[in-house]
Amino acid sequence: MTPAELERYLEDRRVLVDEALERHLPSANDSPKEIHEAVRYSVFAGGKRLRPILVLAAAEAAGGQVKQALAAAAAVEMIHTYSLIHDDLPAMDDDDFRRGRPTCHKVYGEAMAILAGDALLTQAFILLSAPPALGGSDPDARLRVVHEIAMAAGSLGMVGGQVVDMLHEDREIDLPTLQYLHAHKTGALIRGCLRVGGILASAGSDELDALTRYGERIGLAFQIVDDILDVEGSLEALGKSAGSDLRKKKATFPALLGIEESRRWAHRLVSEAQQSLVIFGDRGTALGAIADFVVMRRR
Amino acid sequence: MTPAELERYLEDRRVLVDEALERHLPSANDSPKEIHEAVRYSVFAGGKRLRPILVLAAAEAAGGQVKQALAAAAAVEMIHTYSLIHDDLPAMDDDDFRRGRPTCHKVYGEAMAILAGDALLTQAFILLSAPPALGGSDPDARLRVVHEIAMAAGSLGMVGGQVVDMLHEDREIDLPTLQYLHAHKTGALIRGCLRVGGILASAGSDELDALTRYGERIGLAFQIVDDILDVEGSLEALGKSAGSDLRKKKATFPALLGIEESRRWAHRLVSEAQQSLVIFGDRGTALGAIADFVVMRRR
Repeated sequence: MTPAELERYLEDRRVLVDEALERHLPSANDSPKEIHEAVRYSVFAGGKRLRPILVLAAAEAAGGQVKQALAAAAAVEMIHTYSLIHDDLPAMDDDDFRRGRPTCHKVYGEAMAILAGDALLTQAFILLSAPPALGGSDPDARLRVVHEIAMAAGSLGMVGGQVVDMLHEDREIDLPTLQYLHAHKTGALIRGCLRVGGILASAGSDELDALTRYGERIGLAFQIVDDILDVEGSLEALGKSAGSDLRKKKATFPALLGIEESRRWAHRLVSEAQQSLVIFGDRGTALGAIADFVVMRRR
Repeated sequence: MTPAELERYLEDRRVLVDEALERHLPSANDSPKEIHEAVRYSVFAGGKRLRPILVLAAAEAAGGQVKQALAAAAAVEMIHTYSLIHDDLPAMDDDDFRRGRPTCHKVYGEAMAILAGDALLTQAFILLSAPPALGGSDPDARLRVVHEIAMAAGSLGMVGGQVVDMLHEDREIDLPTLQYLHAHKTGALIRGCLRVGGILASAGSDELDALTRYGERIGLAFQIVDDILDVEGSLEALGKSAGSDLRKKKATFPALLGIEESRRWAHRLVSEAQQSLVIFGDRGTALGAIADFVVMRRR
């Protein structure tokens, strides 16, 4: 895939995912309107939709159809959005802006933001268990998908990672703790995306293992690149010295490893992720290109 | 069932539910410990376990076994507890005490309380989709159970009710709005309990309808009695005049209907709930006794 092809591919998928989200969320007119407005404000805030696109790409790599995986892809994005809404709350990271817009609680108030997050998390499971969703998959596979996503999102996964992040706020952190943090806070759900796509496409256990390995590496690489972009972004935007930025937020890979070593690490992870795709032959092309995109992206 | 028999029945079931919760929650030593401690603090705070007991009783009324319904019963209690943790938050009802103990956020802080609620909601779905859970039920029934519970908990159910409650805080409220509020905030999950018990016991559609009717009436009766006990409790405990109490919190049945009419209404609902049990013959005895308990209880 050329960069232009990948860009078109990502854009096409993003549109499919947005359509699925539109279809599977209560409308802004459903009562009580206030909550559905808040939910939709946060869901349709212009995300890259990387996680749901990984669900779709994994299903295709394993020989399945985009159509079978679209509802699960939308469900994963709902869970991702809920986690952003709750992480941004004053009691958590206290962020006023997200993707250039005021955060949910700045627009709708704290109580409504808490409830919008709760509603989105629950809506994901409504969707995953809905009679017509995940069409074509047998009920056993659908239960496995519910289980994968719930495990990835729960206290031994994403929520656990956020807890560790919170507990280390403004504190020194060592590399093993930082890896644990990211493997849970963002890694668990990304790994889950790959596995869910595979399960819906009836992947064999070797294929599922390959998708899992790919997911784990790409998840960590994604986070390392995020950290690098943060440091570079604040250097450019704020003209701060690297030192002051690193002192302010110690829990980053560049802070612990330096920018160059962090970059090398991300490249090594991406290359390992791509090696695990061999089993899929040509069907793994999109996942391979997405892995490149993760380290090459500028935002 | 005599009152003493019912008391023993409720106590036996409460123990079964507590054992299931103990089994199906991450241990306090699972990492990160902080969240599992907070979760367990709130779950094991001495609740009546009315909702999970209704799941078990519904399964038995429909000819099923307690054993098949125990995991679903525990899952429902997790969702109930999550809703209490989030409702108590400063941004919501701002309650410092619950069941005589400091609320989750008073002990563990706001961020941990938000995450403990998120973890519990997610844990319910981990449990409902776990391979060994709901033993003996086919995967289709288990997916239906996931769907029932998620629908009952989501923005068109419990979360929607909490939104309406919040929007009417310190405002006049009319009877239809109050009924909507309770049918969603507490009614939807109670109704869901009855239906889930029925589904796991392979109830026919007439039986499921009967359980649904019972659940809707018992849910509303429970809430009316709660309101009455609140008014009586604050009269006794605080020596306030009824007038001042009613002015402070307008959104109650006694405030709109008066205590006597509220009591009559609760009794009528309980009697309707009991009539719908005829279809179950003797197997409906426990549900019938629980309905009496709902209006007779003193706390």
